[in-house]
Amino acid sequence: MLPDDARIISVDDHVIEHPRVWLDRVPTKYADVAPRIVKLPDGNDTWLYEGKQSGNFALNAVAGKHPRDFGMDPRSYDDMLPGCHDIEDRIKDMDIEGTWAQLCFPNFGGFAGSTFYAAEDKDFAKLCISAYNDFILDEWCAYAPERQIPLMMVPFWDVEASVAEIERTVDKGAKSISFVEAPHKLGLPSYHTDHWDPILRVCEEAELPLSMHFGSGGMPQGLAPDGDMFISIALFGLNSMITTVDLLMSDVFYKFPNLKVALSEGGIGWMPYLLERIDYSWGRHKYWCNVNADKLPSELFREHIYGCFISDQSGIEQRHRIGIDNIMFESDYPHSDSNWPHTRKLLAEHLVDVPDDEARKIVELNARTLYRFWD
Amino acid sequence: MLPDDARIISVDDHVIEHPRVWLDRVPTKYADVAPRIVKLPDGNDTWLYEGKQSGNFALNAVAGKHPRDFGMDPRSYDDMLPGCHDIEDRIKDMDIEGTWAQLCFPNFGGFAGSTFYAAEDKDFAKLCISAYNDFILDEWCAYAPERQIPLMMVPFWDVEASVAEIERTVDKGAKSISFVEAPHKLGLPSYHTDHWDPILRVCEEAELPLSMHFGSGGMPQGLAPDGDMFISIALFGLNSMITTVDLLMSDVFYKFPNLKVALSEGGIGWMPYLLERIDYSWGRHKYWCNVNADKLPSELFREHIYGCFISDQSGIEQRHRIGIDNIMFESDYPHSDSNWPHTRKLLAEHLVDVPDDEARKIVELNARTLYRFWD
Repeated sequence: MLPDDARIISVDDHVIEHPRVWLDRVPTKYADVAPRIVKLPDGNDTWLYEGKQSGNFALNAVAGKHPRDFGMDPRSYDDMLPGCHDIEDRIKDMDIEGTWAQLCFPNFGGFAGSTFYAAEDKDFAKLCISAYNDFILDEWCAYAPERQIPLMMVPFWDVEASVAEIERTVDKGAKSISFVEAPHKLGLPSYHTDHWDPILRVCEEAELPLSMHFGSGGMPQGLAPDGDMFISIALFGLNSMITTVDLLMSDVFYKFPNLKVALSEGGIGWMPYLLERIDYSWGRHKYWCNVNADKLPSELFREHIYGCFISDQSGIEQRHRIGIDNIMFESDYPHSDSNWPHTRKLLAEHLVDVPDDEARKIVELNARTLYRFWD
Repeated sequence: MLPDDARIISVDDHVIEHPRVWLDRVPTKYADVAPRIVKLPDGNDTWLYEGKQSGNFALNAVAGKHPRDFGMDPRSYDDMLPGCHDIEDRIKDMDIEGTWAQLCFPNFGGFAGSTFYAAEDKDFAKLCISAYNDFILDEWCAYAPERQIPLMMVPFWDVEASVAEIERTVDKGAKSISFVEAPHKLGLPSYHTDHWDPILRVCEEAELPLSMHFGSGGMPQGLAPDGDMFISIALFGLNSMITTVDLLMSDVFYKFPNLKVALSEGGIGWMPYLLERIDYSWGRHKYWCNVNADKLPSELFREHIYGCFISDQSGIEQRHRIGIDNIMFESDYPHSDSNWPHTRKLLAEHLVDVPDDEARKIVELNARTLYRFWD
């Protein structure tokens, strides 16, 4: 069971950036081009950046609403819980749902900075990424350092600049880098090249796990173009499955034996199947395929890859097939998967048959160990 | 446990078409263009069809070999078990591995007839499909009708011709249609249209389940282009996951409430996860997404979709989360996943903790019921 004194750490939540995140931080000369919120004639708020309206909050800021009120319409800051964007209210909302600490991904910025990767002015985009990181470190996490795990973006299209930003933010307390699950889908080199080595090396040396959020490499592919968007929503975990096999069959974990990767929002219930499948296939094809034949893929997985769940009874039931040290919890506040304000209650129901020591690892200790996040 | 008197029915095996399958059956005037085997200078055999060499046996005909001898080199008929292509030997090999009956997919023809879909002369391609079906009905299955379940191809690019071929072959004893898991990936309308209704209707009326083999809609998508082919092999089950959600979120099972779909070679261990995920997402998004909101997706699944496994401990352990009536076994002879000649022994080990009545359903009765295949 979930011990009463276990402090729940959620490793996948989201910050809705407040309107002044960038305006407060970029040099004055950029004041006209920095991402800003504009009020539309219909009363909704939208981001304006490089002359483009981009992003609405929609499903990303619906915590507390009934699903009947979900949708893709743009919304305004007035139409969401203040905890979406205000750290003081966020901590209160965490107290209400019963979570102690959390790791937040960006919203406007994209899970791993895709908004800035798409920008025209890449130099300014780098400033915007640093500004976001400073917002997270100096404002968001600084308010409650025991309760917010600092997750950074990097200008991943520029390896050297990414290394510099990692080094800069590590000195300020960064605990993880939000990184792209499938860079090849963004037109960049894949994990089967040496392209990313400087970034991976500095993360390994600084003991910074990479947090790879599903969707950071785009939508699931191969779907019918005329199927409803719901099909993507239900299948987003496939992105994490692909990333798992892709990484395990690359040289990444052989080159960086202490590197860790957290798969964010991908669920865990598929892991027992996929690990069996990859081991079974590997036993048959390792002789003729160009893959590392030294270590059973499921062993490599347990040394390097972590998953998290919101609601995943099959994964919890088969937790020992995954690895009890590889499972973490996520609340997903304030996204549409969130169970706020019932998070702790539902999690306790989920873990009712799990021994206390295992439950404590899953809800708290694994995250503390992975993210080196101790009081 | 696996009862000693249970007759194992494998619902995913493969026939390597012998060299005269088409030459023996197409009208004489097509003798020069019919698919034929040619001997290459290096001693290997290859199919020649419309002037193109296509297909080698490779991993599709390796039963009995050690994985060290697997590879993608073309091979010859001399380099495979005669049971790959000779029905008399096939039955002997089934006796050796301990399987009673099986359902075979084409090899040269493609799982669902993709070779003929790609042909220039589509009229002749239809003749070739009918010739294959006659081979399966009159030669392959006729030799041992209690031990071979007749699975047909159809010229799926032509709905009317497909309906005619289904009606023609049903009269001769056809028990299932091999159909494309993701027609949109082949440039055809998706399951979110009414395009396929005449085919689905005649299958429903004739109680013919559709057998959808993974890969019949192409390779998994979104993979790194420079990753090894092994990554595809390990991830092929994702195709079945996509098809599951795609079908459940289409109108197909609402329009055809008695239609059944067997997912072939896709495994089962992912089903508990995916069913939880789709139910969870559906509960949140059914209000605003354009999906049927009448029936819980997992309920719809249990009424319509079947899976099969070779080696899948997590799936067997969680069989009740899938549905005990929805699980079947596959041997995959003579492909590289096959455990020939140890099939029955390994299956028995797999089912050691499963009650006899459930084991009997999984290995035999579910297939008999779905394919209406009774002695």
